[in-house]
Amino acid sequence: MTSLNALGYPKLACKTPVPSDIEVSQQIVKEVGLLPIAEVGKQVGLTDDEVIQWGIAKAKVPLSARESRKDQPNGNYVVVTGINPTPLGEGKSTTTIGLAQGLGAILGKKTIACIRQPSQGPTFGIKGGAAGGGYAQVVPMEEFNLHLTGDIHAVTAANNLLAAALETRMFHEASQSDEALFRRLCPDGKDVSPVMKRRLKKLGIDPDKNPSDFTAEEKSAFARLDIDPSAVTWQRVLDTCDRHLRCLTVGQGSKETVKSKEKEGERLQHDRQTGFDITVASEVMAVLALSKDLADMREKLGAMVVGYSRAGTPVTADDLGCGGALTVLMKDAIMPTLMQTVERTPVMVHAGPFANIATGNSSIVADEIALKLVGKDGYCVTEAGFGADIGMEKFFNIKCRYSGLKPKAAVIVATVRALKMHGGGPPVSAGKPLQKEYTEENVELLAKGCCNLQKHIENAKKFGVNVVVAVNKFKTDTDKEIETVKEASMAAGAFDAVLSNHWAEGGAGAENLAKAVVAACKACDDEAFKFLYDVNKSIKEKVEIISKEIYGADGVDFSELANKQVMQYEKSGFGNLPICIAKTQYSFSCDPSAKGVPTGHRITVREIRSCAGAGFLYPICGDIMTIPGLPTRPGFYDVDVDLETGDVLGLF
Amino acid sequence: MTSLNALGYPKLACKTPVPSDIEVSQQIVKEVGLLPIAEVGKQVGLTDDEVIQWGIAKAKVPLSARESRKDQPNGNYVVVTGINPTPLGEGKSTTTIGLAQGLGAILGKKTIACIRQPSQGPTFGIKGGAAGGGYAQVVPMEEFNLHLTGDIHAVTAANNLLAAALETRMFHEASQSDEALFRRLCPDGKDVSPVMKRRLKKLGIDPDKNPSDFTAEEKSAFARLDIDPSAVTWQRVLDTCDRHLRCLTVGQGSKETVKSKEKEGERLQHDRQTGFDITVASEVMAVLALSKDLADMREKLGAMVVGYSRAGTPVTADDLGCGGALTVLMKDAIMPTLMQTVERTPVMVHAGPFANIATGNSSIVADEIALKLVGKDGYCVTEAGFGADIGMEKFFNIKCRYSGLKPKAAVIVATVRALKMHGGGPPVSAGKPLQKEYTEENVELLAKGCCNLQKHIENAKKFGVNVVVAVNKFKTDTDKEIETVKEASMAAGAFDAVLSNHWAEGGAGAENLAKAVVAACKACDDEAFKFLYDVNKSIKEKVEIISKEIYGADGVDFSELANKQVMQYEKSGFGNLPICIAKTQYSFSCDPSAKGVPTGHRITVREIRSCAGAGFLYPICGDIMTIPGLPTRPGFYDVDVDLETGDVLGLF
Repeated sequence: MTSLNALGYPKLACKTPVPSDIEVSQQIVKEVGLLPIAEVGKQVGLTDDEVIQWGIAKAKVPLSARESRKDQPNGNYVVVTGINPTPLGEGKSTTTIGLAQGLGAILGKKTIACIRQPSQGPTFGIKGGAAGGGYAQVVPMEEFNLHLTGDIHAVTAANNLLAAALETRMFHEASQSDEALFRRLCPDGKDVSPVMKRRLKKLGIDPDKNPSDFTAEEKSAFARLDIDPSAVTWQRVLDTCDRHLRCLTVGQGSKETVKSKEKEGERLQHDRQTGFDITVASEVMAVLALSKDLADMREKLGAMVVGYSRAGTPVTADDLGCGGALTVLMKDAIMPTLMQTVERTPVMVHAGPFANIATGNSSIVADEIALKLVGKDGYCVTEAGFGADIGMEKFFNIKCRYSGLKPKAAVIVATVRALKMHGGGPPVSAGKPLQKEYTEENVELLAKGCCNLQKHIENAKKFGVNVVVAVNKFKTDTDKEIETVKEASMAAGAFDAVLSNHWAEGGAGAENLAKAVVAACKACDDEAFKFLYDVNKSIKEKVEIISKEIYGADGVDFSELANKQVMQYEKSGFGNLPICIAKTQYSFSCDPSAKGVPTGHRITVREIRSCAGAGFLYPICGDIMTIPGLPTRPGFYDVDVDLETGDVLGLF
Repeated sequence: MTSLNALGYPKLACKTPVPSDIEVSQQIVKEVGLLPIAEVGKQVGLTDDEVIQWGIAKAKVPLSARESRKDQPNGNYVVVTGINPTPLGEGKSTTTIGLAQGLGAILGKKTIACIRQPSQGPTFGIKGGAAGGGYAQVVPMEEFNLHLTGDIHAVTAANNLLAAALETRMFHEASQSDEALFRRLCPDGKDVSPVMKRRLKKLGIDPDKNPSDFTAEEKSAFARLDIDPSAVTWQRVLDTCDRHLRCLTVGQGSKETVKSKEKEGERLQHDRQTGFDITVASEVMAVLALSKDLADMREKLGAMVVGYSRAGTPVTADDLGCGGALTVLMKDAIMPTLMQTVERTPVMVHAGPFANIATGNSSIVADEIALKLVGKDGYCVTEAGFGADIGMEKFFNIKCRYSGLKPKAAVIVATVRALKMHGGGPPVSAGKPLQKEYTEENVELLAKGCCNLQKHIENAKKFGVNVVVAVNKFKTDTDKEIETVKEASMAAGAFDAVLSNHWAEGGAGAENLAKAVVAACKACDDEAFKFLYDVNKSIKEKVEIISKEIYGADGVDFSELANKQVMQYEKSGFGNLPICIAKTQYSFSCDPSAKGVPTGHRITVREIRSCAGAGFLYPICGDIMTIPGLPTRPGFYDVDVDLETGDVLGLF
């Protein structure tokens, strides 16, 4: 029998040394046992109808759970972010889960952790858990890391339906007259469908006009999108680390040819160079993360721009007739997935947009549902991806702007290891043993690197929230080192700075952190939260404000292409969208090797892309890779199934 | 309140004319109401633990449901197949569902219908339901047609992980020495993983030998797969109708280059022409359909051949280190999905392999579970794809051979429409109105076409099962026409021939068909079932037997390539696999326009491909398209969401 604490949560029997993540997960499932997922929902007041079981130890929560509680007060909204990390990661997800365990299972506060769904591709590539780790993780971790409830697969399906629609439309337009196109789009006896009416309205044609009464100009305007092949922006996606798909030429089949207009009898190959991204880089994922409800998602999906016509007009998913079908493919994905931590506290997993080219934050709807469910005295602990210069800034300026929610506290995760790196320690890289600077006490190096943490604290305070620093404990950290980080934090204006040992001890290890977060929320003025910029400023001004205020840059240089795009977006009506800068997470600057707090640097904007559906522009500052590769011995070599028990082996 | 019949099933209030499939589905859900899925399972004795809810009105049934009943007798095994169809389809799925409703809800026999999961791609392309139709369908049809429980998405993920592993391995081998490859595959301090031991065993190297003791030859043999780029057989997949992916060149990115061996300092693009298939054409799907359990699936997935080395050795998924990871990705997919018909009878949906290049049959495990659940007096009604010359032949010779299950009856679905076409009627094509030959009585034309049905009846009897002909009723059929079909059926040796009106009336419309099936099963000798060929015959002999006995061909011509492949497969140990011929479903011959019963024709085998993991060889006889295109106005134009209710609109 599992022994429970006074609040009814299981007492963890943590092993030393801490086993691998999958071993901890399987230990919990077998020795402690999972709570039936409906019972997890009941902890925060979800009724049976509001917990739709979806596979093993997972459920989806319908948006009605938010609607039916709309007159109730929200809980305390806490974002977990971090300093600029080493390539090993400093434990943001683990801290998010550990803090939620501390608040829920130890302090007895109603708490829901909200985290992103990880991409399945890298699960089999370079290892690294995404469900938290050690005794601060979501279980069963293999359910969390594989398929989950299919949301990423739905994004793949939606993204690629749109890609096929686009490519095929270009193909049909290349081989058919306006009249033939129109006749096929609006055959006799077939209704003009709702999505077609959207396009007619946009073109200024009466959507109720009988298609047979259209003028030749109207037919042509409606039927020919005239997409410029060199101005297509939509890519296909796969949730697989397949680097050979980064750049490829499609349409080389013997049937993908069109009649030449120049030479009678000749056929031309209808091919085109394009690329794949990993699924979480799809704008559809960004839409999922930022949608308020099904109707809002329908509008956002329909408004996604796939490219531009030869005349420079944006062509949208709705122009291609796809917005409704995309929404249907995403209708289940809009519901967050409910799971549990090793201490049986509730977790919502929802959306996983890239943290550079997108917001890197989990969904608005999951946070909204969580805030209603935990109520006035409860806590929604949500995670922002990458370092605070990117993840937190986007959380405040984009996610909170669209949701209207007001956070009260930011938890900034720091490790002694990463701060030493910022102080000038040798490079840290995955798969290589750590040098002695990191495994032995070195207060001097650490003290030098604390400037990175201090700048993040100052940045967070610009938004009007209280900052709690969580020092994520490694066993080689010394008391003196911990003290150094705390002092530096308080000197920079942190509300508190606390050592946390959740990885090894679960919620009990995060008790002090949880208490500090409670105090920080209590001390926060409800009205203090503010954005860094007004969206109605020009695109360039917004980029400059972020670059100077957050990155500490001297200024911004826009390439010729970026300048052209600024004009195009302002003309297309996208000028007042918030800005989502794509840059490295390893530095405040665009140079990943510039540690600490670089000064005197400038930000170079090579180009600016748009997510007009999701609702932001993303300037590209540095090399951004949107489909990872596999190493020579990828993680999948160690993954197998125990054929007797069905247990998954070797997954982290 | 829904009124129930004496057996406890809902009485259907069928509308005339029958509304669209989605309207019927939504009518049933709203007016009749669904049974909670656990209750559906209880009808056939499934306990709560054996029904894992998986989304809305769907559940997965674990394989333990079969293991725990292994000493119980099987039910009656009935396969539903059809004549060579028109492009509109003659209603095999609808008859499968309607017959199961008749057996279950009307006759009160424990019955489970087993059907394939449809590909989601075509759902948005050219319309056509896959959940049955009218009042003989699986509900909710939108849940059935979209995502289901994610099995196809799992196949996509597994197939493409293997593709990425293959492509990246070729890339790494092109740029690394044997020594470097080996060092990366077996780094110091890292265990030789179970999948690596499989490869070592295959190479005759002691799997427990310490890697540091390997000779240079052993290192090289282990680390270098030396895949011949021109002999790669594995393709990527997507569940999307994207014709421009049929043929493409991958690896054109600036980082996908390798050092030239000829010219110092030069780098060569590591590109390659390849293609995508639609996901259901993946061998992973064929494996899912033919696996007996998790352990068997592990072996089959690991044994899939992705190509050949320069020395002509088959390279498998296990050689690439992927077999375990693929199994982990497919661990939930191996569980069949439980849903319900409009009359609340149970349906199992599982696997959906292509009917030409694969078996076109739903899974072995679903049928096995169903047969145990319905028990001695019950019925498992399973569907075989395409016409009986392909689907039924593969059902008997491949699926039943691997499962060891013995069918008792074959239901051959015929329509007056298709038989008239076989009698010489004008072409029938999707989207065009039917000519008067089909809408008015024409007994002469019909009588001429009945030969097609008669040949299928004779074929089925060669396997020792009783044949029941189901004439799927259309409202234009006349009594005289129906009588003609019945007489022709009985003359050819059918056990019975029955008119069935399940599309318009549900189970009540199939009552007579159900009674005929019960009688046919009762009259069948348990030991009568036999295969058409011995798998130990040569590849060519097996192809010839099928061609002569089933297709009525005079003989078979093998191309030079096919002859070479026969030798290669016999050398590789694949010679004793059963044969899965890929040809048109529209004719007994390879010419889709040859209607009726063509004679004097020969079968031309252009090439022979292998599914060594799934366990069959597939000779290519005719043009086989493995990724459909989209028309100018695809089905997605009509699909949308009712933003008030969340209802799906316009899906069929």
